[in-house]
Amino acid sequence: MSRLDTLIEALRCLPGVGPKSAQRMAYHLLQRDQPGAARLSAALSEALANLRHCERCNNFTEQAVCGRCADPRHDRSLLCVVEMPADLSVIEQTHAYPGLYYVLMGRLSPLDGIGPRELGLEKLIARASDGQVREVILATNFTNEGEATAHMIAELLDARGVRVSRISRGVPVGGELEHVDAGTVAQALIDRKSL
Amino acid sequence: MSRLDTLIEALRCLPGVGPKSAQRMAYHLLQRDQPGAARLSAALSEALANLRHCERCNNFTEQAVCGRCADPRHDRSLLCVVEMPADLSVIEQTHAYPGLYYVLMGRLSPLDGIGPRELGLEKLIARASDGQVREVILATNFTNEGEATAHMIAELLDARGVRVSRISRGVPVGGELEHVDAGTVAQALIDRKSL
Ligand SMILES: [Zn+2]
Ligand SMILES: [Zn+2]
Repeated sequence: MSRLDTLIEALRCLPGVGPKSAQRMAYHLLQRDQPGAARLSAALSEALANLRHCERCNNFTEQAVCGRCADPRHDRSLLCVVEMPADLSVIEQTHAYPGLYYVLMGRLSPLDGIGPRELGLEKLIARASDGQVREVILATNFTNEGEATAHMIAELLDARGVRVSRISRGVPVGGELEHVDAGTVAQALIDRKSL
Repeated sequence: MSRLDTLIEALRCLPGVGPKSAQRMAYHLLQRDQPGAARLSAALSEALANLRHCERCNNFTEQAVCGRCADPRHDRSLLCVVEMPADLSVIEQTHAYPGLYYVLMGRLSPLDGIGPRELGLEKLIARASDGQVREVILATNFTNEGEATAHMIAELLDARGVRVSRISRGVPVGGELEHVDAGTVAQALIDRKSL
């Protein structure tokens, strides 16, 4: 296999990139943007070597504990569970939430083989049982998978006596947090219901 | 800027990748496919370090002159000009062409600032004037840009007394070679007209 074929093949690890578009990307990088290709190669290896998951919130970070979790100004009695880092950003933009987060980095998805173990829910359970958390707010998406994830987490935490709430359906049914305006998300936080 | 942000930014050098999809790609690589990310990083730097343009046909190669150009079994009196390596592959699949190629690696595109100089047409002119080439067959796409490219090349070669032909319009008007069946392309080669 030539190095060009190896590159085309390697580009296919990107989600949504098929053979044709991998080929187009490879030609573009080699022909028109070699500096971009060099930056991408370096950024990938730098990220792999340096990024890890925060011990407390599971978000990507370059330290053992991320800046947010280490910051004493946040309310440590509230733990908001989101699917992805982008969801965390959406909630931060509401300025309506004083607590901390837990980022699942995914959702239950039986068809893709992602069950409670693959999602690492035991890490969330341990985090929520630290003695400081008084309420876990579930802010997974209102998709089928996000709802199933919320129900599973609620069940697991319930069994351990942790208080659990779910942000309200101010977020449109079937909708994803990332695509909703901050006002709606703020309302959904305020209207959260105990589960 | 964190290394995660650097990676997201770097992914945007890929054609057709906006901020949202760069973010999705970064999360996917870090969360679900670190081996793929490592392979991609290595493939990019390997390709950058080792791939260059063939001195004769301008296609990507790891040698000074590619295997095809070095192979004495091809008819050196025929030079077929294509836009991209994928077009060359399409013509090879017809088994109807015994000659050599020249790969432009693009097309004239004034709106993108790609004129005759940016396209490196002087390299093609020099190649076509080696004393062995007796006919240059233009097989650029039948899009507006491909047609303009063909006309420009025909003019330049004409002025130097090189015989030029254009593959026939068996290829649908507005169509791209890459998406046409081999039979149609074969017919277009056979029906080529002198320009
Ligand atoms: Zn953290
Ligand atoms: Zn060559």
